Amino acid sequence: MEFDQWFNAQLNARPIDPIRLAEPVPVADLPTPALLLDEARFEANLARMALWSKTTGIALRPHSKMHKCPVIAHRQLALGAEGICCAKVSEAEVMQRAGIESILITSPVVDQRTITRVSELARQNAQLIVVVDHPEAVMRLEAALAQTRTTLKILIDIDPGLGRTGIAPNEALLALLQMIDRDCPHLMFLGLQTYAGHCMHIPEFDKRKSKYQRALAAGAEARNVVERAGHSVQLMSGGGTGSIDFEAELGILNEIQAGSYAFMDIEYRDIESNNGPTFEDFSVALTVLVTLISQPKPRTVTVDAGFKSLASDKMPPQFKDVDGLNYYWGGDEHGIVALDNPSRTLQLGDKLELLTPHCDPTVNLHDYYYVVRDGYVQELWPISTRGCSQ
Amino acid sequence: MEFDQWFNAQLNARPIDPIRLAEPVPVADLPTPALLLDEARFEANLARMALWSKTTGIALRPHSKMHKCPVIAHRQLALGAEGICCAKVSEAEVMQRAGIESILITSPVVDQRTITRVSELARQNAQLIVVVDHPEAVMRLEAALAQTRTTLKILIDIDPGLGRTGIAPNEALLALLQMIDRDCPHLMFLGLQTYAGHCMHIPEFDKRKSKYQRALAAGAEARNVVERAGHSVQLMSGGGTGSIDFEAELGILNEIQAGSYAFMDIEYRDIESNNGPTFEDFSVALTVLVTLISQPKPRTVTVDAGFKSLASDKMPPQFKDVDGLNYYWGGDEHGIVALDNPSRTLQLGDKLELLTPHCDPTVNLHDYYYVVRDGYVQELWPISTRGCSQ
Repeated sequence: MEFDQWFNAQLNARPIDPIRLAEPVPVADLPTPALLLDEARFEANLARMALWSKTTGIALRPHSKMHKCPVIAHRQLALGAEGICCAKVSEAEVMQRAGIESILITSPVVDQRTITRVSELARQNAQLIVVVDHPEAVMRLEAALAQTRTTLKILIDIDPGLGRTGIAPNEALLALLQMIDRDCPHLMFLGLQTYAGHCMHIPEFDKRKSKYQRALAAGAEARNVVERAGHSVQLMSGGGTGSIDFEAELGILNEIQAGSYAFMDIEYRDIESNNGPTFEDFSVALTVLVTLISQPKPRTVTVDAGFKSLASDKMPPQFKDVDGLNYYWGGDEHGIVALDNPSRTLQLGDKLELLTPHCDPTVNLHDYYYVVRDGYVQELWPISTRGCSQ
Repeated sequence: MEFDQWFNAQLNARPIDPIRLAEPVPVADLPTPALLLDEARFEANLARMALWSKTTGIALRPHSKMHKCPVIAHRQLALGAEGICCAKVSEAEVMQRAGIESILITSPVVDQRTITRVSELARQNAQLIVVVDHPEAVMRLEAALAQTRTTLKILIDIDPGLGRTGIAPNEALLALLQMIDRDCPHLMFLGLQTYAGHCMHIPEFDKRKSKYQRALAAGAEARNVVERAGHSVQLMSGGGTGSIDFEAELGILNEIQAGSYAFMDIEYRDIESNNGPTFEDFSVALTVLVTLISQPKPRTVTVDAGFKSLASDKMPPQFKDVDGLNYYWGGDEHGIVALDNPSRTLQLGDKLELLTPHCDPTVNLHDYYYVVRDGYVQELWPISTRGCSQ
């Protein structure tokens, strides 16, 4: 087998369809750790964001790097989403196979083999959009597309001060624009992306708003640069769950890339607790079910989920519906729980739900959502793009 | 489809065999992030640990929760390993399907559905060993085994002061032993497990040794309790990569559960740098290949690997073979790299290797090892038990 053949085969082997069980299973009977999705809360979150988009007139293009699930992407599209975002090309390949066409790849593509894959995706899908932020990558893309006589829509990525990807709205932007204009007949300039991820989790509403406003100034300036150069900006994409309350007032973006709103997590809950009005519209729909498997000391119990089931990049998880329990990391497969003042008695074998610390990388640790409706699971949704970082 | 049928089907769908490519691919042509395994270093690590085991007479039962790969488990067994460890039952199910029989499940099993699966595994495999640490779990196991008329070897888990799983070597141990003796004809007491994970990463040799010695005292005391009760302890299992230098002298364990030695990581490198003699025998065989995809500022570049490709429970990764670069987390899919004083010039598209922060949860983010020999990849080894936390 050749490398590309193998690479495609392992992507194509990923399941994309929901599984429906003949008999529903009570949550308490599930093996653990299990990633639970509360379907009613999840649907309410989707409906509320769809309403926000309709009310403000700002398009919604949910970021699928959060949920990684074509079943969920299709639900978002059915409620009026403009398309989806993918962080990486392999994510887009799986989503496209699952029948989704309006895809924006939000991270620059540079590697030659991956650029070849982008041009193949574009050949199959006229709606594909890719961001660029560097002349070298632009030339590689143009060359690959020229070979297959395919055109591709592009956004230029503008750095809003995050310092991760994107360029400044100055002569670098102008030079890139002119290069695309002059040397790249297969690239169609569609607009700009500016994603201010560093503003999303600031707890205080006013502080977040003012920092976000300063960040978006780069996007506004970029639009001026582009328009002064005689081009129109059809698409201004960026923003997220943490910025929806300001987007309409700021009036700079015409599309937002929110992801977390569908599930929510502790990072956003922290905002919620400090600043009710901002996030009261979304509720936590994602938890990890764990089992109490040991009690090494009178005031300590151990549950069966650690770094391999819960994102560990920031804070530890918190228990849902039980107070007075504190989770401490207990390694790859365990959490050690201090019984500081538990609001209920606990015993070996009890199953508890943990609110997830950071939803995106938590989802990335699991293969299926256990979809919960009224305390039972009857559907399993594959996390089809889990691990698709390439 | 019934739940159990689906659950088994998704475990059985996992690939277990190595893939051999028709043509080798140069490392520089791989899509990234890619988990690279330097086969020569890896083999040297395995050979050195095999020699240690032969020299000391202490059996080696490598923990497969580290590598999650039957191809690697088979190599360890071929070099004389006694068997393997699995943290969870689903890991053991996949390893058993891959033809591995001598398996120790190192974490207590409590959940009813999972206990039923253990009894099914035991029915197929007389070599299976499972740890227990609680009367309730013991009774559930006995009941499940009685139904299928199967016997199962067990170890009692002793807490060495880690406070995660296991019991103290006192009347609790005696009561559990008597209960097994009296009420559990299907459980065969084989010995004790005591894993002092809290000692493995202490940098200073002497401090680590003395803390480890204190931790193992619980195991020694447990053996006395068991022997005074008229039972023999055939197996005393525990220990890890961080304890191999003391095990022979301490003389308490007759089997160690080391995992990290096969790959090594930055946590152990920290020990290495502080204390040469301890870990000079093992070298770092695992890296993550990344691509430089953006340069937002003159002294900053961005690479395409973040929380979804590298374990984030402790420290960030470090660059291999290039000095003066500092990696900062840039979210799920990116690392932001400060060019503090780079030892070589870098440009867009360059591929660099990152030493992994913590090997176990890093491996858990990937689907395949790209096995590197002389700068080329010709084999891919599936990470078959990735995500098998249930």
